[in-house]
Amino acid sequence: MGGTKVSARARLAAVGLGRWGRIMASAYVNSEAVELVSCFSRDAERRGRFAADYGCGEDESLEALLAREDIDGVVVTVPNDQHAPVIEAAARAGKHVFVEKPVAVQVEHVKRIQRAVAESGIVFACGHSARRLAGVREMRRSLDSGELGTPSMVEAVFSNERGLELREGDWRGDPAQSPGGPLTQLGIHQIDNLNYLFGVPTRVVGVGRKGAPRVANTMVVGALLEYDDVVGFLGTDWLTPGAFTMDLYGTRARLRYELDFSWWSDSADTDAHARLIKVHIESDSDDPDARILSEQPVQLAARNHLREEVEEFGRALRGQAQVEVGLSSAVANVAVVLATARAIEQGRAVDIAELQSELSI
Amino acid sequence: MGGTKVSARARLAAVGLGRWGRIMASAYVNSEAVELVSCFSRDAERRGRFAADYGCGEDESLEALLAREDIDGVVVTVPNDQHAPVIEAAARAGKHVFVEKPVAVQVEHVKRIQRAVAESGIVFACGHSARRLAGVREMRRSLDSGELGTPSMVEAVFSNERGLELREGDWRGDPAQSPGGPLTQLGIHQIDNLNYLFGVPTRVVGVGRKGAPRVANTMVVGALLEYDDVVGFLGTDWLTPGAFTMDLYGTRARLRYELDFSWWSDSADTDAHARLIKVHIESDSDDPDARILSEQPVQLAARNHLREEVEEFGRALRGQAQVEVGLSSAVANVAVVLATARAIEQGRAVDIAELQSELSI
Repeated sequence: MGGTKVSARARLAAVGLGRWGRIMASAYVNSEAVELVSCFSRDAERRGRFAADYGCGEDESLEALLAREDIDGVVVTVPNDQHAPVIEAAARAGKHVFVEKPVAVQVEHVKRIQRAVAESGIVFACGHSARRLAGVREMRRSLDSGELGTPSMVEAVFSNERGLELREGDWRGDPAQSPGGPLTQLGIHQIDNLNYLFGVPTRVVGVGRKGAPRVANTMVVGALLEYDDVVGFLGTDWLTPGAFTMDLYGTRARLRYELDFSWWSDSADTDAHARLIKVHIESDSDDPDARILSEQPVQLAARNHLREEVEEFGRALRGQAQVEVGLSSAVANVAVVLATARAIEQGRAVDIAELQSELSI
Repeated sequence: MGGTKVSARARLAAVGLGRWGRIMASAYVNSEAVELVSCFSRDAERRGRFAADYGCGEDESLEALLAREDIDGVVVTVPNDQHAPVIEAAARAGKHVFVEKPVAVQVEHVKRIQRAVAESGIVFACGHSARRLAGVREMRRSLDSGELGTPSMVEAVFSNERGLELREGDWRGDPAQSPGGPLTQLGIHQIDNLNYLFGVPTRVVGVGRKGAPRVANTMVVGALLEYDDVVGFLGTDWLTPGAFTMDLYGTRARLRYELDFSWWSDSADTDAHARLIKVHIESDSDDPDARILSEQPVQLAARNHLREEVEEFGRALRGQAQVEVGLSSAVANVAVVLATARAIEQGRAVDIAELQSELSI
């Protein structure tokens, strides 16, 4: 029984041991679904510290790590522009891949990743954790149950102050590496949430603003996302205190979701620092001035958005689960990011199909 | 002294005695700045009831009312498409005009009103009351004082359920009479608020959706308003429970304003049913994951948005005040409405200057 129990846990290795790699490891290190076996970073000091802190082994090269027989999959949190080569190497070695969002932002990289995954048949998951927030799950449930009535408008905002501290030369300040600035880093989470709630939009228009004198990249993005029946607004701003909000407007009720961004990376506590408010007409009347609105908090059962996505990945590569956000969803999200960046740059409405076509292999 | 006291109050007459005319009268009838002398509606029963309810006289024709020497100005709440002829008649008679928003939505009507006002030299005020809400005044103060730092993004939403009950033939369902549907009826309030906070935008793109099977008009509008440094979102939706919100994002703090729309027309109590929340980084750190956001309510001293605007009009025609929202502001707001409607219809970005040029005399 002991042997069975050990092998039932998917055996993972962390590749990329920076800030986000550590946050992810903190979320899944004690999971019963996955086991952190090893880690790799080119930086030996960083690697040793990670191995000590999370109680795993370490490998001195990516090749050595990928050659190990006791590793089933890798959790990749290297910078975006290294996703393609790392995923290609993992796929060649038959290792399953969990990769942080965005899957990639360069068209050729997105294609390389799709080819590598298709040819190898590995399990692939992308870290769009925000849809696993309890409030986002509840919004989806409210839509599916009909409690909101017919939805007509949605606003989604994800902003923080990180643009204010960008240094010259930071890759996030480079439009090629982070198209639309916060759009690639933050807005993509809301793009995935909107895709989760309403499907892929058909078209986008956008407006961008720079704002940091020494940084070439866009710092503020507003976009209108068109769905068949719903009008969507996406706002993402790198020049303001953290904000993660969604407003969903239906004929029967509207929902307001607010997350305290301070708790974003403490995934066991994120949901405890979020609220979902439902507003509906409590007392109706033929006289519009006599109608009374009511505002009620919706109870949310706490989840763990980062742990869940890695555990699902682990179970999927044991055949015990389906990956919710696989490669096609990840590519659809990038299509919306790139369409929005293009809409801003070219000052025109851009069909998402235009980008999906360019990204397809 | 008695005689002086009476003549110090501006003597007004109500023209248009429907729902909004009554709401306005309720707001100003006991004012020390204005006196409600008479009223007019073609509907004699409605007129008699108004006169009885608000303790004023009544006139059997607009001509008779405008010929009276004991009336200084008129408060006009007739349907939008009657604004131009009523204002022209008032201006010819030398009566000052307060008119409900929008000043007019047909280009030729806007021009006629501008000519009538220019030629007569009357005092003119337009009922954009929302900027007088305590929370909106406080947002402006926070911008002016620098407490928010540099603003980069703003969202403004005004929605309600009125589109769900539109009947065939209602003028609000006609795109010519209410361009953009809720855009003309609700969104224009937020357009004025945005103009108040950031000036007139340079350009707009928009997306609209219909949604009621028997109604030709747009029911949902999303628009991006471009300012020099700020990206604005305007949302206005006629298919959802009442919502009046603004989110203002600055480098040092952000503000969230929410008004309980149930209390919109009870202007003495509107501010008591609104809240303004300020979010800033309370505890800063070099480690972004250690930063703590703080959320605090901002105290608002209650005002009375509808009473104030009529009192200011009354004082202005006694030479004791300046009208804050005069004809140029009212026309600028209509320019943004019509530019947005055109942007939606033609699927392109529209310069506000294009409309301002078309509307100028």
